[in-house]
Amino acid sequence: MSSDTAALEAEVNRLRLEVQTLRATTASEPIAIGSYLLERLKQLNVKQLFGVPGDFNLGLLDLVEAHPEINWVGNCNELNASYAADGYARVNETRIGAVLTTFGVGELSAMNGIAGAFSEMVPVLHIVGVPSTAQQQAKMLLHHTLGNGRYDAYIKAAENVTIAQGIILDAESAAATIDHILTECMKKARPAYLTLPTNLIYTKIPSDRLKIPLSHTQAPNDPEVEKEVLNEIVQRVDRASANDSVVILVDVCAIRHDARAEVNELVKKTGFPVYAAPMGKTVVPEDCKGYGGIYVGSISDPVVKAKVESAELILSIGCVKSDYNTGNFTYSIPAARTVEFHSDHTKIQHAVFPNIGMKALLPRLTPLLDPYSASARKITIPPPYTAVVPDDATNTITQAWLWPRISQFLRPKDVIVAETGTSNFGLMDVPFPAHSSFVSQLLWGSIGWATGCTLGVAFAARERNLGRTILFTGDGSIQLTVQELSTMVRHALTPIIFVLNNSGYEIERCIRGAEAQYNDIMDWEWTALLRTLGDRDGTKSVSYRVETKAELSKLLDDETFASAGKIQLVEIVMEMHDAPRALKVQTAMGNEENVYGY
Amino acid sequence: MSSDTAALEAEVNRLRLEVQTLRATTASEPIAIGSYLLERLKQLNVKQLFGVPGDFNLGLLDLVEAHPEINWVGNCNELNASYAADGYARVNETRIGAVLTTFGVGELSAMNGIAGAFSEMVPVLHIVGVPSTAQQQAKMLLHHTLGNGRYDAYIKAAENVTIAQGIILDAESAAATIDHILTECMKKARPAYLTLPTNLIYTKIPSDRLKIPLSHTQAPNDPEVEKEVLNEIVQRVDRASANDSVVILVDVCAIRHDARAEVNELVKKTGFPVYAAPMGKTVVPEDCKGYGGIYVGSISDPVVKAKVESAELILSIGCVKSDYNTGNFTYSIPAARTVEFHSDHTKIQHAVFPNIGMKALLPRLTPLLDPYSASARKITIPPPYTAVVPDDATNTITQAWLWPRISQFLRPKDVIVAETGTSNFGLMDVPFPAHSSFVSQLLWGSIGWATGCTLGVAFAARERNLGRTILFTGDGSIQLTVQELSTMVRHALTPIIFVLNNSGYEIERCIRGAEAQYNDIMDWEWTALLRTLGDRDGTKSVSYRVETKAELSKLLDDETFASAGKIQLVEIVMEMHDAPRALKVQTAMGNEENVYGY
Repeated sequence: MSSDTAALEAEVNRLRLEVQTLRATTASEPIAIGSYLLERLKQLNVKQLFGVPGDFNLGLLDLVEAHPEINWVGNCNELNASYAADGYARVNETRIGAVLTTFGVGELSAMNGIAGAFSEMVPVLHIVGVPSTAQQQAKMLLHHTLGNGRYDAYIKAAENVTIAQGIILDAESAAATIDHILTECMKKARPAYLTLPTNLIYTKIPSDRLKIPLSHTQAPNDPEVEKEVLNEIVQRVDRASANDSVVILVDVCAIRHDARAEVNELVKKTGFPVYAAPMGKTVVPEDCKGYGGIYVGSISDPVVKAKVESAELILSIGCVKSDYNTGNFTYSIPAARTVEFHSDHTKIQHAVFPNIGMKALLPRLTPLLDPYSASARKITIPPPYTAVVPDDATNTITQAWLWPRISQFLRPKDVIVAETGTSNFGLMDVPFPAHSSFVSQLLWGSIGWATGCTLGVAFAARERNLGRTILFTGDGSIQLTVQELSTMVRHALTPIIFVLNNSGYEIERCIRGAEAQYNDIMDWEWTALLRTLGDRDGTKSVSYRVETKAELSKLLDDETFASAGKIQLVEIVMEMHDAPRALKVQTAMGNEENVYGY
Repeated sequence: MSSDTAALEAEVNRLRLEVQTLRATTASEPIAIGSYLLERLKQLNVKQLFGVPGDFNLGLLDLVEAHPEINWVGNCNELNASYAADGYARVNETRIGAVLTTFGVGELSAMNGIAGAFSEMVPVLHIVGVPSTAQQQAKMLLHHTLGNGRYDAYIKAAENVTIAQGIILDAESAAATIDHILTECMKKARPAYLTLPTNLIYTKIPSDRLKIPLSHTQAPNDPEVEKEVLNEIVQRVDRASANDSVVILVDVCAIRHDARAEVNELVKKTGFPVYAAPMGKTVVPEDCKGYGGIYVGSISDPVVKAKVESAELILSIGCVKSDYNTGNFTYSIPAARTVEFHSDHTKIQHAVFPNIGMKALLPRLTPLLDPYSASARKITIPPPYTAVVPDDATNTITQAWLWPRISQFLRPKDVIVAETGTSNFGLMDVPFPAHSSFVSQLLWGSIGWATGCTLGVAFAARERNLGRTILFTGDGSIQLTVQELSTMVRHALTPIIFVLNNSGYEIERCIRGAEAQYNDIMDWEWTALLRTLGDRDGTKSVSYRVETKAELSKLLDDETFASAGKIQLVEIVMEMHDAPRALKVQTAMGNEENVYGY
């Protein structure tokens, strides 16, 4: 379906919903408000509901437990649950996840995870079970309150980290509120907040609205403005193409705003060389023709840096110019040579065209640029982006050796999750196979996120028949959220979990306190974790500890390990003070700016 | 020192600080802002700083690591750290704790713990390391930001759960801000929030102010109003005393607002029978003459209930009338027969006297009521509050058997921490020995809190040479915060941790879903936890699993166990669907109100 048709259908559905809201109908089968919410989630392909039970959400949980298509995950804590919902949303085809917590205590525990979804543009619905409307109105001194009668305190807090808040207080507006919140959540690719009081969960409302699907398609681009934009872009491509000097730079918003297919079509048809920002890794398959590698400002491979920065025209798609995604703001691609495509605007040099979104624009641009494909293919790209495993003759597993070696282990369709530490910066530098996905949190960068996230990723990957879910994290990071390994065992998920044991917070050591005790942590019995936290008879998991290159290589080459069909944890013993190249450069630059005024 | 003198000294100090602020002085030795903060904490007897390192707080951590009297704890995650700071504050003699997190990711993770401290009136200083003032002003797209340039979002969120926010943005006002925040935190017995940007941590400021101690004494009561209040109270006591019908009811605010000694003096001198609300357990020693037990509305022991509710006059001190603390609002002590003493007001029948605080009032009241002590001692109290261990001949460890048996195990000066589940409601019903302390969170009731809290309690108890720190929690609850066991091992703390293994969230089963799967959890290898999470060679801890009454009794009677001097974990195997009496009654009443609208 073309973007235009989708936009029109969306408009029709929006209007139908409005009509429904205005025209009270009693003809349809009534449905409980709680069930209405679950049906909407089901329609959006949300098959897993993450969260923790609490007295104000148990009524809804009865409906979840009875639901044939939505599974209650039951996390160990709420922060982990919010991370898992975030991970699920990132890999779920419909790009949405949901988490259920209880009033006050539960919802506040999830706040960091929800804020991370906001920052990283991941649509997560945060449902909170709250006291009955009568209790709220009476401002009763219930447990889980602040003791000051302020029933709006948590909503006010949530306003800072969610794009929309739906406060259900009566049956009449409940369905419209739910629909609005879900639409905002998906359209803006940000988390939304929804409270459901105990006394309304089972209140019956008409179910008619459920027949009209929710739509989050952006409003169509204005044809006249779009025409001007297309014309401007084609002119620039025409000029730069004459000098074999056009490149495409892709970033994460292409995924977040559902334009991945459109971007790949552009890349394929035009044949212009394509580079990715770190957060945009795997937006285009890294084995595709014309792929040149990762561009991250002055941290880039020098050849990549020269190719991108010398281009006369850079088509920059969905970019997020954060510190870690731009080599600490060292992009050297002036606006004068850049066209930026975003979800809700386009920028040509310094001219901003509001409301010209890339999802609709790119399919119109691609055929116009198609004629340049012959010359495009003459543009040279850096040498093939391959993983070269250095041969340094020592047995120690170094960062320089590890990541290329891991690259060889990856398979098509694998989903690779990286903690924002040595893992993320190490994986940035090595190629991934076709149709693999890279899941990282480089903007929000919350330590411990990757472990919780992996739970959600593993669910979504299983539902979509993707490849293996593989987590790379550190000994410091996994400590924050370790209990979620238990939930993975519980649901027979089969991720491979690599724990880089370098005796502490290595990314912090790069920033400050290389020898400080505050960057040290307790050394755990890593290979005992899965058995202690749920696999009591040892049949559901396998754990390994590797100390040398030879041991790790042997393991990676072992087909039984590579496709075990059960959860596995590998402790990789590494040395303190060893960090990937990109991390060292990034933190050295950051430290200069983050001055401590002595 | 009398309360009046203290108030006057406080006023003098306040004025001196104001003079300092107005009169720039350069005579003193300059001090780094970060060090100034640490010195203030040191003066308040804060010897442990809880938290997690993050790039924006590492500069302060260097100062902490170099500080001779403040120890960096280094928690496994921020929520646990905030719980630990809360626990430390509850037992620390100066009643304050502190936690350090990093911008965005760290501080939001701690929010539930901070909100709990607000609700329960525990002064915790939340220090957040934030980006430099230049980065803040430029609204740079740094990691840990929401990506929208809003550098005030986390402050806005914190406003809802802290009593005061100190946002340090320049050197000139830094000291005054720190002093103000700490004073508010202690005076109002609520958490406060303080941001410290990287570029100001080492900026030097005058140190003169440090010579003036911070004071949080309440303003003195107005003598004329106080005189009226005293007169009114004495008249009422005189009348009720004639009928041997005065009782004292103590609650937790007596501890929170530093009036424990004054309350105990009143109880001792007057000899009136004294009862405690659940949150007020151990405010007066439970072995003291005249102590009658716990009053919790209709959940009370019937004899206690009759004694309290039939009294002609109830002197209610520091009460918190929350659902779980009042038997679901079933207090049957009408205002007409009650005098309420609070930190900032007094209420006689329905007359409110603002700004007449109990800390100053009680020492004046006690001598006036002393003459009634002879008749007071004639008032009968319920039979001695002793633990009767039922002899039901089965081997199964039941809730009815467990708590009286545990009561016998407790020793003077022990500090007992209870999770808000079966543990809290079970312990409510049994007596505690002299000078023991009960640490619970019945108002906020956040699942998992007790484990993190125990870390802080154990530190404070060790510093004060108190008895053993003993935690009672459930298998469901400990899963939320389990990694903090590692920190206890790390710092050679020696709590005894009882994990009641009843296969899930028992308190939730009492509320709803007795047979629902959502109340089930994974069964862990509980006795392997301490070794997996840090005691790798098995020398620093001991773990036990007991399945029968005989096994548990034997263990409790074992002196090696009772005073092991190392951390111990005891898994107590219990049956699903067994709950303490008080919890069953409480939840049955709550369920009636918390109606689900079918």
